[in-house]
Amino acid sequence: MGIFKDNGVVYKPVSDVDVGPHSDDVYISPKVKAPRMAGLLVTIFAWFLESRIFGPIMLYILKKDNLIHKLVSFADLEEPPVFVPLHPDEDLKEQEIKCTESDLSPPELVQKATECLQFSEYIVKNPKFNFYRWTITDYSKAYTSGKITPRLVAEQFLAAVRESSKAAFQMSFFINYNVEDILKQATESTLRYERGQALSVLDGIPIAIKDEIDCLPYPTTGGTKWLHKARRCTDDACCVKRLRLCGALLVGKTNMHELGAGTSGINPHYGATRNPYDRTKVAGGSSSGSAAVVSSGLCPVALGVDGGGSVRMPAALCGVVGLKPTFGRVPHSGVLPLNWTVGMVGILAGTVEDAFIVYAAISGQSRSCQPATISPKVHFPLLKSPNSVSNIKLAKSAEWFNDCTEDIKVCCSRAMDQLYKHYGWETVEVTVPEIEVMRLAHYLTIGSECSTAIACHLEKLDMAELGGDARVALSVYGAFNGREYLNAQKIRNRQMQLHKKIFAKADVIVTPTTGVTAYTLYDDALKTGELDYINGAALVRYQISGNFLGLPAVTVPVGYDKLGLPIGLQFVGRPWSEATLIHIAFAMQALCISDYKKPQVFYDLLEQD
Amino acid sequence: MGIFKDNGVVYKPVSDVDVGPHSDDVYISPKVKAPRMAGLLVTIFAWFLESRIFGPIMLYILKKDNLIHKLVSFADLEEPPVFVPLHPDEDLKEQEIKCTESDLSPPELVQKATECLQFSEYIVKNPKFNFYRWTITDYSKAYTSGKITPRLVAEQFLAAVRESSKAAFQMSFFINYNVEDILKQATESTLRYERGQALSVLDGIPIAIKDEIDCLPYPTTGGTKWLHKARRCTDDACCVKRLRLCGALLVGKTNMHELGAGTSGINPHYGATRNPYDRTKVAGGSSSGSAAVVSSGLCPVALGVDGGGSVRMPAALCGVVGLKPTFGRVPHSGVLPLNWTVGMVGILAGTVEDAFIVYAAISGQSRSCQPATISPKVHFPLLKSPNSVSNIKLAKSAEWFNDCTEDIKVCCSRAMDQLYKHYGWETVEVTVPEIEVMRLAHYLTIGSECSTAIACHLEKLDMAELGGDARVALSVYGAFNGREYLNAQKIRNRQMQLHKKIFAKADVIVTPTTGVTAYTLYDDALKTGELDYINGAALVRYQISGNFLGLPAVTVPVGYDKLGLPIGLQFVGRPWSEATLIHIAFAMQALCISDYKKPQVFYDLLEQD
Repeated sequence: MGIFKDNGVVYKPVSDVDVGPHSDDVYISPKVKAPRMAGLLVTIFAWFLESRIFGPIMLYILKKDNLIHKLVSFADLEEPPVFVPLHPDEDLKEQEIKCTESDLSPPELVQKATECLQFSEYIVKNPKFNFYRWTITDYSKAYTSGKITPRLVAEQFLAAVRESSKAAFQMSFFINYNVEDILKQATESTLRYERGQALSVLDGIPIAIKDEIDCLPYPTTGGTKWLHKARRCTDDACCVKRLRLCGALLVGKTNMHELGAGTSGINPHYGATRNPYDRTKVAGGSSSGSAAVVSSGLCPVALGVDGGGSVRMPAALCGVVGLKPTFGRVPHSGVLPLNWTVGMVGILAGTVEDAFIVYAAISGQSRSCQPATISPKVHFPLLKSPNSVSNIKLAKSAEWFNDCTEDIKVCCSRAMDQLYKHYGWETVEVTVPEIEVMRLAHYLTIGSECSTAIACHLEKLDMAELGGDARVALSVYGAFNGREYLNAQKIRNRQMQLHKKIFAKADVIVTPTTGVTAYTLYDDALKTGELDYINGAALVRYQISGNFLGLPAVTVPVGYDKLGLPIGLQFVGRPWSEATLIHIAFAMQALCISDYKKPQVFYDLLEQD
Repeated sequence: MGIFKDNGVVYKPVSDVDVGPHSDDVYISPKVKAPRMAGLLVTIFAWFLESRIFGPIMLYILKKDNLIHKLVSFADLEEPPVFVPLHPDEDLKEQEIKCTESDLSPPELVQKATECLQFSEYIVKNPKFNFYRWTITDYSKAYTSGKITPRLVAEQFLAAVRESSKAAFQMSFFINYNVEDILKQATESTLRYERGQALSVLDGIPIAIKDEIDCLPYPTTGGTKWLHKARRCTDDACCVKRLRLCGALLVGKTNMHELGAGTSGINPHYGATRNPYDRTKVAGGSSSGSAAVVSSGLCPVALGVDGGGSVRMPAALCGVVGLKPTFGRVPHSGVLPLNWTVGMVGILAGTVEDAFIVYAAISGQSRSCQPATISPKVHFPLLKSPNSVSNIKLAKSAEWFNDCTEDIKVCCSRAMDQLYKHYGWETVEVTVPEIEVMRLAHYLTIGSECSTAIACHLEKLDMAELGGDARVALSVYGAFNGREYLNAQKIRNRQMQLHKKIFAKADVIVTPTTGVTAYTLYDDALKTGELDYINGAALVRYQISGNFLGLPAVTVPVGYDKLGLPIGLQFVGRPWSEATLIHIAFAMQALCISDYKKPQVFYDLLEQD
């Protein structure tokens, strides 16, 4: 890293930092000292932080204790700031890809994507599998053959959601769903199938949208009780528009951590989303509802937003696939502006193939969705067979990789061994330097941006309308000065260069997706939210480069811990390398899918009663 | 602008803002209440601001009094932040341009530029002129014909600099110049001319470099007594490299306002640069020395850096041309990192043609100068005759334009009338909205960035090594929080959009360059620096869009006030429209040049003794 001086670290030049296995970079696992807080304690803590007198003092102590001062605020580093992690379009040497033409419509893109799924014989509902989720293709075939209709699926969906909300379940999947609207869409889709005019393979497929993304006819609450009153939703977000053009059945707005400002998915206003694998556990967040609806079989796919792992963490905890594209790949218009430089729409799906199809539908900047930023051509992977890509090099930073529970470490290591055994993909030992620095710089960035984004709303707001944990988060978020923000952006530049060095050695960086599996949801947290920085830090441990550096990342379920809770393995790729990432995830999935387990709470919408 | 609420302004959408002459936008002239301070008072004020107890309270009051809270900190506006004012390469409809090929070397670019100067008969040293400065072409011809040699010019230059430093003058032009190095360069240039192998028309031309730009064999002080010890100069800046490739005679490092953090050019360590038109007046800053050496005839051209008018203001006060290219046009490598998003290398020259030739030499991003950012192709204007460009539309925002001294108003208005009379260029009345908001947002941005850039050095520094005014500036610079910085970037986006609306109505925005002419240099300021926010605000009044929005701008001398002090007229253009701007400046100069007056302090290097 560099030399510790009185106040801050003097970082050495990037060219002198060794990213090999024997680097002298010291791995710092965040030593979080904060005790878990919930209930009245959280509210009192929030009140202290908001106080004019105690607040600044406590915040100073918090920043100092958490190494923010040493590693960021008073850091001495040469790099100029990079404010937005937009990467130039480099010539990626991807294997087995299909280049898409520009100017294709979303249904045409979906058509191209399904043409890339060339393994008709490979994955089918296989009797030797423990459990297998219905895919988009399964729905589409059932609709086309007339075995079932979108209207029937919609009715079963609504019945299941009602069931999941009952006192015995309290799954808290959705913040809003409109029965009439869903049935209307389903009826129209059904008519299209009857006329043989389905818009795409997505026609009639139930897709849920995180309540951070505009989707008519719903307000966009961001998990709050007030934001939708301050900011009206007047149109579909660009990504939702594209799904609608493909005929998708938009089934409502999923629950989320309030303002995306936490990782547990415990929302004091709309209920804590429960984990379908064990309803006494959290679903993870902030895209908690989107992960849980896919996990429980209500939708093959849902959209989330990932600003600090918010798609990948709940995906891993709920045993589904989570794909976060490269920053700038999916238009951001119509997504709540809770930050500007780290968040991206992401996809939660039962299978890699389904994530890919929806990725195809929503990717690429377009003139119709302003503001358009430069985004390279979208490449599609040709998914012929899991081993059609060869010579993938996996980077592993051992000390970091192993900083998780024993079950996760064993499970993820085994998954990597399998990749070598079946495909010959070798693991290169590397060091990802300054991980804790990057985490703090990202926290400072997303915090400052979130605080700025909602500050003008907060002034009019009664703080009691916010959950206790969100109040604490907002107090901390507002505590950073201009220099701290700018130093964080200098660290962003530095880390982009460091990661470039790593990607010169390997194609993807492999880590567990989270450091812990789904943890217990305590009753005292339900009304106030919960502060659990130890579990929070363990969840977010492997997420940051995806957001702060804008890198694409995907998580795939690779097993279960001793309690039967899902474990995800994450692949982080070069900028714009989604095609390769999807291929790798597909190959990984092929090795694990036969052992997938059925969640405790599961609904089978394709089975007729 | 919008509605004033309790804490801050709620801005209306850009689409609702009228930029026409009858806009309801209220022009706010900054009502600066601060008294002028110099001597011991500045030092005491600095000490108060730096105190842990009084500092934060005073800074809070300062921010509140100066509308920063209302207009920026607590502002409510929709625009996402734009951090770097890099504009896409739009298809400019420029007239009379020559497109340059990429991959030309600096000497080849200079050759192309001189080919564009097609008015051989037009501007010559004309007996009807009051006064005329030797141009690059004059030097080049004299060298080529053997009338004089670079070696002789160098000797006369050195004698003149020595003369200017004497007690009777104390001009304080340079921070550093190395006799041996200058004579060595001059001898080499002389030999090239003897061999008929001059590298370009710039061969042997004395060019001075602001001491904010790396130029071997000198340290880069940034006008301080310590920065060059903390940051070593090990190479030429990219722009200096290019000039060297053209054979330019690099004659030393010019004086500047300490850290560029002021506009007077009063440097307590290296002396206050005096105005060649009246040595009891300031030269303006921060590129004070670069303006003064051109004004006094020591160099036909000098380089400066413009982060908040720092090239254009001293150019106007010293009666020379100042050109600030579009942000990103000139590589920034090797320029002191005092900010990252507002500063640009600029050119000070005796004539528009000379500014153009040096612009040609240093413009364009290249692979050899890292980090390369995207910069559109450089277009050159074809300077056939002043009226070869037709139908230029000049935008004038009357209330703003007139917020200057009577002399300036009359002189600048007359200049615009002349443009209409001689070339038929019409003036379109517009409103540039929210100018004071932009000024504050820019101040907050450059302040936060400067504070971050030098923070790690300051910790090791005895504050007594800094001038009093720089200490005050740094205290204020460090006082902004992350939200204020981010809101400033939202305002940047907003102003980029507002300016787009104005540029739909006109080709350039015309203003006086400064609101006052060169003001008095008092003795009590010489050792401590001076705080004079009233003159400072008047100087900077018309500068901000050039820096905060990255727009190209040029100032041309158009007359003198009653005391005989120079007045500049400024043209601010669309992004990347330097070719048009140079053409306009050339046409303006043609109407004024015969009335140019000779400075009090002037050296004629081409006259042989």
